[in-house]
Amino acid sequence: MTPVVRIDLDRLRANIASMAASEIPLRPHVKTHKIPEIARLQLAAGARGLTVATVGEAEVFADVTDDIFIAYPLWADDRLAALSRRVSLTVGCDSIEAASRLSLIDAPVPLLIEVDSGHHRSGVPVEEVDALARQILDLGLEVRGAFTFPGHSYQPGQTAASDEAAALSQAGEILRDLGIRDLILSGGSTPSARAADATVLTELRPGVYVFNDAQQLELGTCGWEDIALTVRATVVSRRVDLHQVILDAGSKILGSDRPAWASGFGRIMGVPDARVTAVSEHHGTVAWPPGEPLPAIGEEVDVIPNHVCPVLNLVDEVEVSDGSRWVVAARGKN
Amino acid sequence: MTPVVRIDLDRLRANIASMAASEIPLRPHVKTHKIPEIARLQLAAGARGLTVATVGEAEVFADVTDDIFIAYPLWADDRLAALSRRVSLTVGCDSIEAASRLSLIDAPVPLLIEVDSGHHRSGVPVEEVDALARQILDLGLEVRGAFTFPGHSYQPGQTAASDEAAALSQAGEILRDLGIRDLILSGGSTPSARAADATVLTELRPGVYVFNDAQQLELGTCGWEDIALTVRATVVSRRVDLHQVILDAGSKILGSDRPAWASGFGRIMGVPDARVTAVSEHHGTVAWPPGEPLPAIGEEVDVIPNHVCPVLNLVDEVEVSDGSRWVVAARGKN
Repeated sequence: MTPVVRIDLDRLRANIASMAASEIPLRPHVKTHKIPEIARLQLAAGARGLTVATVGEAEVFADVTDDIFIAYPLWADDRLAALSRRVSLTVGCDSIEAASRLSLIDAPVPLLIEVDSGHHRSGVPVEEVDALARQILDLGLEVRGAFTFPGHSYQPGQTAASDEAAALSQAGEILRDLGIRDLILSGGSTPSARAADATVLTELRPGVYVFNDAQQLELGTCGWEDIALTVRATVVSRRVDLHQVILDAGSKILGSDRPAWASGFGRIMGVPDARVTAVSEHHGTVAWPPGEPLPAIGEEVDVIPNHVCPVLNLVDEVEVSDGSRWVVAARGKN
Repeated sequence: MTPVVRIDLDRLRANIASMAASEIPLRPHVKTHKIPEIARLQLAAGARGLTVATVGEAEVFADVTDDIFIAYPLWADDRLAALSRRVSLTVGCDSIEAASRLSLIDAPVPLLIEVDSGHHRSGVPVEEVDALARQILDLGLEVRGAFTFPGHSYQPGQTAASDEAAALSQAGEILRDLGIRDLILSGGSTPSARAADATVLTELRPGVYVFNDAQQLELGTCGWEDIALTVRATVVSRRVDLHQVILDAGSKILGSDRPAWASGFGRIMGVPDARVTAVSEHHGTVAWPPGEPLPAIGEEVDVIPNHVCPVLNLVDEVEVSDGSRWVVAARGKN
C-alpha cells in the first residue's frame, strides 16, 4: 500500500554516528522523528539527553531518557510540574511573563534564556539578556544558560553558525557576570551544526540530520546517499503531453513546506532532474526530466520530501528497512 | 491547552444549509473534515452521498452512508473489492492501465472518467475521453459518467466554473454517444460551486465550505462571519521592536499551505490587518497591525488557517462550541 514512509536503517545509523562525532556534545531534537526507537539510537551513540518542542513530546520521551530540554518559550502549567517529578527537565524562556507563570506552578523547573541570533522568531535580542536574567533570578528561578535556534541557516549563503556563536558568546558573558556557573550555551540546527563554534557552544540540538531531506540536499548539507527517509508512492496518472506524472503522495504525507529558494516540493530518488512541482492533498505532480521516459502508471517511486519533520507528524507508523515497523509515538503531540 | 482546533457549530450548520440550497445535488467531499458527525449533518441536509479521496477514508465513511464516490484515479486492490461489498462505490479513472487493474479485482466497481478542465493535475484532456471510454467499456467495466476538479478556482480571477461546465458538457456528449444513460457529470470546488452550471452538472463535490478558511476569505468566497473553524493559540513570545508576536500554533497544526497570492499563512479572527507571516513547526509569527497594541504574552487568539483540510489531518479531535469533542475519525487515512 502506498503512500508509505520508509526508513533506511543503515543510512539512519550512519547519520547518527556521523553527527555523534561532533566535538560539541549533542542533545538532538526529537521533534524530527518522534520515534522512541530512534531516540534510543541517538542516546546509545552518546547524546547527553534529548530536546523536544512541547510538553506532550516530553511526556512521550520521558520513557526513553531522564534528561529533557523543552526548547520552546513555554506558557507553563501543572502538566509541566507533574512531568518534572518523572524526569530532569529544563525549559526555554524569553519573557518575564512566562517566567512569572513558571514560578507559580507546583514545581518550577530550571530554564535557558532564548536569544535571537538572527532568525527573528522567538528569543530576545542579546542586549536584553541582562535585564531579563536579573528579573528571572529575582523570581527565585534557576537560570542554567542560554539557547538559540539559528534558523536563518535554512537560507543558502547565511552566516548562521557565526551569528549563533556571537549571540551565545555574548549571552554567556552576561550570565557569567551574574554569577551563573557551569553555563549551558545551546545552539544548533542541522545546516549549521558542522560549522558550530566548539569554543562557545556547550551543546548542539540538530534534528533533521537523522534522515536528511530535499532541503538539506539543496542547501548542500547532505548528499543523496545520506537520505534515510523517503515516501514510497505509486504513479496514478500521467500526461504525456505535459511530460508529467501524478503520484498518490500529496501534502497529506509530504507536507507542503517550500522555501522560496527550493526547486520544488521534493525530489525523486534516482531521478535527480525530476521535480515535485505541485502538491495538493493526495496528488503530487512531478515534472519528469525532458528526454527521460515517463514511468508507467502503477510504477512505484521514492519521493524525498522537502522537509522531513512534518512528514513524521502525518503518519502513525513507518516501515523500516529491516522489516520492522516503528510507531510515531509523539505524532500530534502539539 | 493550546493549540486546539475549535468548531463553531452554529456557523457550521449555517454553511451546510447554505450550500445545500444549491440547485445542483450535493455529494460533499469529506476529506475536508474527516468527521462522521459532520458528514451526518451534510446527509441530513440532503446530500445524495459522500465523496472521499482514498480507500481508507471510504472505509471510515462506510459507517455513515451507503453511497460513496472515491474521486481519485485509484490504483485498485482487493481492499476496494472488500469495501464494495459493504457500500455502493464509484471510483475515478483516467487511464486504461488503472481500468485494467480495476477489472482484475474481485468485484470491479463502476467508474467516472476524470477530465482535466484546466487544473492540469490528474484527468485526461476532453479530446481523449472517447478513446479511453471505449477501451474501458471493452474491459466490461461500467462507466457512469465523468468528473472534474476545477482546482484553478483557487486562483483569483479564474474562469474555473465555465471551464468545468465546458469540459463536462463535452465529456457528457461523448459518453451519451457511446450509449451511456443517466449520466453523472460531477464537478465542483468550494470557490467555483456557486457559479457551477446547473444545466450541465448533475452533482457538486465541494468540501471546504463547511468551515471556510483564510484562502476562501481572500478569494472572496466567504466572509469573516462564515468562518466555522479556528485554531486557538497562546501568545508565547513577542517583540515590541518588530511589532510581532509568536503563537504556539505553527505548521504542525496550521499546515503550511500558501498560494502565491495569499497575504500570509493565515489570519487572526477579529484583527483583520494582522498577518501570519511565517510558520515553523511550533511557532506562528504574526505581524501585528501598526498602531494596534500587541496582545500580552499568555493571551489567547483565534487563528484562521489558510487551508482548513490539512488542519483536520493534524489533530486527533476537535472542540465543538456546544461543549462536545469530535474525533477526526479519518485522520491519516492516506
